[in-house]
Amino acid sequence: MHKGSRKGPFFLSRNPAFLTIPPTQVILETNTVFAKEVVMSNIVVGVIGFGTVGKGVVKILLHDRAILEQRSGCSIELKKIVDLDITTDRGIPLPSGILSTDMADVMNDPAINVVVEVMGGENAAKKCIESALSAGKNVVTSNKEVMAKHGLYFTRLAKEHQCTILYEAAVGGGIPVLHALRNSLSANTVETIYGIVNGTTNFILSKMTEDGSDFDETLKEAQALGYAEANPKNDVEGYDATYKLAILASLAFRTHVNYNDIYREGITAITAADIAAARQFGYTIKILAIGVNHPDSLELRVHPVMIDSSHPLASVRDAFNAIFIKGSSLGESMLYGRGAGELPTASAVVGDIMNLAFTNTPGFARDTDFALNERAVTSINECVTSFFIRCIVDDAPGVLASIANVFGKNEVSIRALEQIDGRDKSASITIITHQVKEERMRAALNEIEGLPCVQKVASVIRVGLGEERI
Amino acid sequence: MHKGSRKGPFFLSRNPAFLTIPPTQVILETNTVFAKEVVMSNIVVGVIGFGTVGKGVVKILLHDRAILEQRSGCSIELKKIVDLDITTDRGIPLPSGILSTDMADVMNDPAINVVVEVMGGENAAKKCIESALSAGKNVVTSNKEVMAKHGLYFTRLAKEHQCTILYEAAVGGGIPVLHALRNSLSANTVETIYGIVNGTTNFILSKMTEDGSDFDETLKEAQALGYAEANPKNDVEGYDATYKLAILASLAFRTHVNYNDIYREGITAITAADIAAARQFGYTIKILAIGVNHPDSLELRVHPVMIDSSHPLASVRDAFNAIFIKGSSLGESMLYGRGAGELPTASAVVGDIMNLAFTNTPGFARDTDFALNERAVTSINECVTSFFIRCIVDDAPGVLASIANVFGKNEVSIRALEQIDGRDKSASITIITHQVKEERMRAALNEIEGLPCVQKVASVIRVGLGEERI
Repeated sequence: MHKGSRKGPFFLSRNPAFLTIPPTQVILETNTVFAKEVVMSNIVVGVIGFGTVGKGVVKILLHDRAILEQRSGCSIELKKIVDLDITTDRGIPLPSGILSTDMADVMNDPAINVVVEVMGGENAAKKCIESALSAGKNVVTSNKEVMAKHGLYFTRLAKEHQCTILYEAAVGGGIPVLHALRNSLSANTVETIYGIVNGTTNFILSKMTEDGSDFDETLKEAQALGYAEANPKNDVEGYDATYKLAILASLAFRTHVNYNDIYREGITAITAADIAAARQFGYTIKILAIGVNHPDSLELRVHPVMIDSSHPLASVRDAFNAIFIKGSSLGESMLYGRGAGELPTASAVVGDIMNLAFTNTPGFARDTDFALNERAVTSINECVTSFFIRCIVDDAPGVLASIANVFGKNEVSIRALEQIDGRDKSASITIITHQVKEERMRAALNEIEGLPCVQKVASVIRVGLGEERI
Repeated sequence: MHKGSRKGPFFLSRNPAFLTIPPTQVILETNTVFAKEVVMSNIVVGVIGFGTVGKGVVKILLHDRAILEQRSGCSIELKKIVDLDITTDRGIPLPSGILSTDMADVMNDPAINVVVEVMGGENAAKKCIESALSAGKNVVTSNKEVMAKHGLYFTRLAKEHQCTILYEAAVGGGIPVLHALRNSLSANTVETIYGIVNGTTNFILSKMTEDGSDFDETLKEAQALGYAEANPKNDVEGYDATYKLAILASLAFRTHVNYNDIYREGITAITAADIAAARQFGYTIKILAIGVNHPDSLELRVHPVMIDSSHPLASVRDAFNAIFIKGSSLGESMLYGRGAGELPTASAVVGDIMNLAFTNTPGFARDTDFALNERAVTSINECVTSFFIRCIVDDAPGVLASIANVFGKNEVSIRALEQIDGRDKSASITIITHQVKEERMRAALNEIEGLPCVQKVASVIRVGLGEERI
C-alpha cells in the first residue's frame, strides 16, 4: 500500500458494493477505466410488487429505457417482476418470462443488483428488503411504513453488506426532498421542517375550505374519487404522516427518529365552523408534519395547524404535497409536487435507480442516514404554540369573565377573543392565545371544561409556524 | 482485460478525474478500498473572489468544517482565497497565509482539486474556469453569465480533462434545481419550465401588487433596500433571467441553449394600472422564464405574464425565486427558496462541493449537460398565448367596433372586454384574447395603433401558462 497517495488530490470509490468478483479482475477493470473514457456499467433490476407503483416503474423502465441509458451511461435492464398475481393484464406489453410469483427468482439471481420493493405493507416488505440487502443487492423502495419502522436496521444492514438503500418515493411521492436533504442541502443545519405530506388529508381540508363542507361529507367525496381508502384511518388519523415525518426528520436532523415518539392528531375533529373561523382570522387549516431542531431535543408532531393564508404552504391545494424547510444557510425553501399516484411515485423510484447509476459507488448508506446519534424528543407538554379555542357556553352574564379568569390563572395570555350569541341560550366564544406551553393550555382547558357555564370545548387547534403573528 | 466481468453486477468509477498519480499506485489504492470499509478522500478548495458569495462560502467552509467532513466522509480543506483586495477586513478570522492576490497560487497548487469561482462577471471568470479545468481541477461556480455564455465550452473542457464543473448557485440561489434536473428528475422528460428566477424583479412586482405603487417609485425603494443595483438594467430588462433560462433549459431539455435565442422583455413598462386590471381578472403579474418542450422545437422566452392568482407561482413574493417544472411522470412540481444573498448562494456552492464529495467519481460532466444535440428554437412569432391589451381611445361611438373589427380580421378571438370612460373625452378599453399566434396579434396591434380613434396601445401583457382558463 502506498500511504502517501492517500493525501493526494484524488477521490476513490469507497463502497464498491457491486463488486462480487475477485480483486484481480477488478484491477484489470479499473485499469480499463483509465484507458477508455467511460465504462458502461450494468444495472439489472428486479421489481417486487406489480400494483399501482410497480406498474408505473415497469412502464418507465420499459418505455424510456433508451433515454435512461443515454442519460446515465449505464445499461438499465428490467429482468424480473414478482407478484402473487401474474395473470391480470396490466395493459403493458412485457418481455416473455419476466413475470414470476417467486421472490427467490430475484434474490437468487446474481445478475440482479437493484431490487425495487413496491409491495407496500410491513412484514413481507421487510423480509424482501432484508433478503436483498443481505445478498448485497441495492434496494429502492417506496414503502414509508417499513422505512419508518425499520430504516435504521436496513441502513446498518446495507452498510454491513456494502450496498445501498434509497427510498425517495416514501416521502412526498415525486418530490426529491430526501435526495436534496442528503446532498445539495447538506451544507445546512436544518432548523425546521413543516410538511404537507399526506395527499388524502390535504385534499379533504382543501375541499372543506373551498366548499364550506363538513368532514364526513368531504371524506365520502374523497373516497368516491379514489383519494381516500375505504378504511381511511391510516390517513385521516395521521399515521401515514408520522411515518413520513420519522423518515424526513431522520435525514434532516441526522438522527434516528422512532415514529412512536411523534405526537399525532388527525383531522377527524375539524369542522366547517373551524375552517370558517380560521378564514376570518386570515388563516388556512392544514395538517402538518412538524420537526423543530432545538439545541437539546427535537420537537416532532403531526396535527392540524392554522397557518397564515399568505404562507406558501397555504396555497398547496388538492392532493399536492409540499415540504417547507428552513436551513441555517439556505433560509426558507419549499419543495412542492404530487405526493402520490402511479407515475409521480414511479418517477421517484426510477430517479433513485438513476441516482445509483450516477453515483456509481453506492455512497448513500452512510452514517448520516438514520444516524446512530440519538436525540431526545421534546414531550408535547413542553411544546410552545399559540392556540385557537372555540367553546360553546351558556349565553349568560359573567361567562366570559370565568373563562378569562381560568386562562389568567394558568398563565395563558389571550391575543384575540370573539363571542357570538347563538340560539337556545347558548353562545360561541372563539379565542386565539399568545404562545404558551402545551401543559399550561391543557390545564386551563381541563378547568374550563369543568366550568358549569361551559357546555363544551368544541375546538382546540394549534396556530402558526413557530413565530407569532403580530 | 477480463471482458466477461464487464457484464457482471458491479459498478466502476468512470471518470477518475482526480487521478494525477501513475496507475500502479491507483491499483494499490483501489485494493485498499476492498480491505478497508471507507477511504477518506481529500477535498482541497481554492476560492477565487472574496465578495458577498465568497464570504458566505468561506464562512461555511471554516465554521462548519467538522460537520461537512462528518457528513461527506471526506476531509474538506480551504487552502486559498484569492481576491485583488485582501486588506479589507471581512470580519472572518482566517488562517494565516490563506489570502492571495495571485490566481496562480491556486492554479499551480497540485493539492487544490476544487476551484470555487465566485468573482462574477465574464472575462476574468472565464479565464479562471478555463485554467482550472485545463489543470484537471473541478470547478464550482455561482456565475450565471459565464455559464450561460460558455457552459458548453466548459463542459467539453471538463470532459476532456476528466473533471467536473458544477454551478447550482447560478440559478435560483440556494434552490437545488439543477441537481434535481440532473439526478432525481432524470426519469422524466421535462415538458415545461416556468421560473421566477430574478429576485429583484419579483420584489418590484410584489411590492407594486401589494402597495399599488408604480414601477419607477418601487425601483427606487428596491434600490434603497439593496434589492436592486444602481444600474438596474441587467435585472429589470430581463438579461439576468435569460442567462438563467439558458442554463435551466440546457439541463432540462438536454440540449445547448444559446441565450441570444431567448425572447426577452423586461418589466419597465408594467404600470400600477396593469396590476390593478390583472387583479380584477383574478391574475397576478410575474416576470417568468419560460421553456416549453415541443416535439420539433423549444419555446424559450422571458417576459411578464398574468398568471392565475391561485397558481403556486403567484404566491412567490418578495425576492424569493421558484421554478415550476412539469415532468412526464412527475407531473407538476415546484422548488421555492431564496434566489440570492450571501448565505443562500453559498449554501448552493458548498452543496456542490459536498456533491463532489458524495459522488466521489466526477460523473457530472456528462453528455446530458449542455448536450451536444442542438434543438431548434421557436420564433416568438410562432408562440401561442393569450394576451391582455389595454388601449386608450377616443370616447366616441363606433370605437369598440373598429377595434373588434381589426381583431376579427386578424383571427384574434376576444375572450373578455371592458370599456371604462375616462376624463378628457378618452376611454380605456381592456381586452383579454383567446390563445393566438404572436404574429397575428402583432399584425392586429399594428393596425390598431394606426386607427385614428386609438390614442395609444398602453399595455400588451401575455396571459396564462399555456392552458387557457375557462
